[in-house]
Amino acid sequence: MHRATLAIRTSAREEMLEVTRDVRQAVAASGLRDGIVTLYVPHTTAAVTINENADPDVQHDMLAWLRRLVPPDPSFRHAEGNSDGHIKSSLVGISAQVPVVDGELLLGRWQGIYFCEFDGPRLRQLEVVIH
Amino acid sequence: MHRATLAIRTSAREEMLEVTRDVRQAVAASGLRDGIVTLYVPHTTAAVTINENADPDVQHDMLAWLRRLVPPDPSFRHAEGNSDGHIKSSLVGISAQVPVVDGELLLGRWQGIYFCEFDGPRLRQLEVVIH
Amino acid sequence: MHRATLAIRTSAREEMLEVTRDVRQAVAASGLRDGIVTLYVPHTTAAVTINENADPDVQHDMLAWLRRLVPPDPSFRHAEGNSDGHIKSSLVGISAQVPVVDGELLLGRWQGIYFCEFDGPRLRQLEVVIH
Repeated sequence: MHRATLAIRTSAREEMLEVTRDVRQAVAASGLRDGIVTLYVPHTTAAVTINENADPDVQHDMLAWLRRLVPPDPSFRHAEGNSDGHIKSSLVGISAQVPVVDGELLLGRWQGIYFCEFDGPRLRQLEVVIH
Repeated sequence: MHRATLAIRTSAREEMLEVTRDVRQAVAASGLRDGIVTLYVPHTTAAVTINENADPDVQHDMLAWLRRLVPPDPSFRHAEGNSDGHIKSSLVGISAQVPVVDGELLLGRWQGIYFCEFDGPRLRQLEVVIH
Repeated sequence: MHRATLAIRTSAREEMLEVTRDVRQAVAASGLRDGIVTLYVPHTTAAVTINENADPDVQHDMLAWLRRLVPPDPSFRHAEGNSDGHIKSSLVGISAQVPVVDGELLLGRWQGIYFCEFDGPRLRQLEVVIH
């Protein structure tokens, strides 16, 4: 098992940051030829997802839609005021897997890996485990 | 690590296609007795999920509900007009795992594996990695 | 590969039950030092997620929000009346992964593992596979 921890500086309350290149570098550094990369977010108001990386409007539409889906709500009890971020984290999910074949991430042609910030800006981490 | 790529022909814009039998065959062909099957969708407007396979009305209700949750929206910027499909892909997710015990998928009694199409019809792929 | 099956008794129709301690015990019993824990729910109206365990209001807010997002709907066809539970199961997801490093779950400071009941009360299972 190989492991890398990516440090991620987010710059807005809600943001999708592409980390495909960093994950690819961690896989190359591991020397693994065939296996699985597990991406893990050790936070409760962030997530990881894989989606289109050709048109930034896709990320814009997704974040705007999530903001409308889970607005701040006066009925939320959690006193920190970021229940919407916790909910988005569980909806999008904090772990994802990508197969590795011949040393390369088996991403589809239009896929990129995104760290999703839902209560930033903050300094975050993404665990990359290659096995 | 064993790997199979399933070719999937979808026939509607939105569809849930059961692939349990194909995944089971890939596991049998691998000869693996104990491990994990990772299912991976290399597309950005499709997903994979595991849910009830006894009553097709469950799939009907899920697709109809998702259509109401993420309707086409004039405020979406992505010019291809399929932002709803990208959003559903990240909500449902593009990877899933099932344990393998004694050569069998550890599915619950009512569980089936579904490829979810959100911008079809198209020819799609599902990666099945057994490790 | 090591495997443990947790028996979980839920006590309400919708509930988030923390199982972090049980998963931690299963990892300790396995003797594994470095690897991945895969959590798998063999049910179609339940899920597993990882989220904040410091303030129970987070779970309250999440369950209340999900109830408003997926209310019982007369247009649902599935005759058992629990289509909302099936939908929540696929939204939150039935599998999750946590890395194990030096024999410890690599959970973030505020993270706990939750079994999510969406059609209880019932006797449920959670599969814990350590590899």
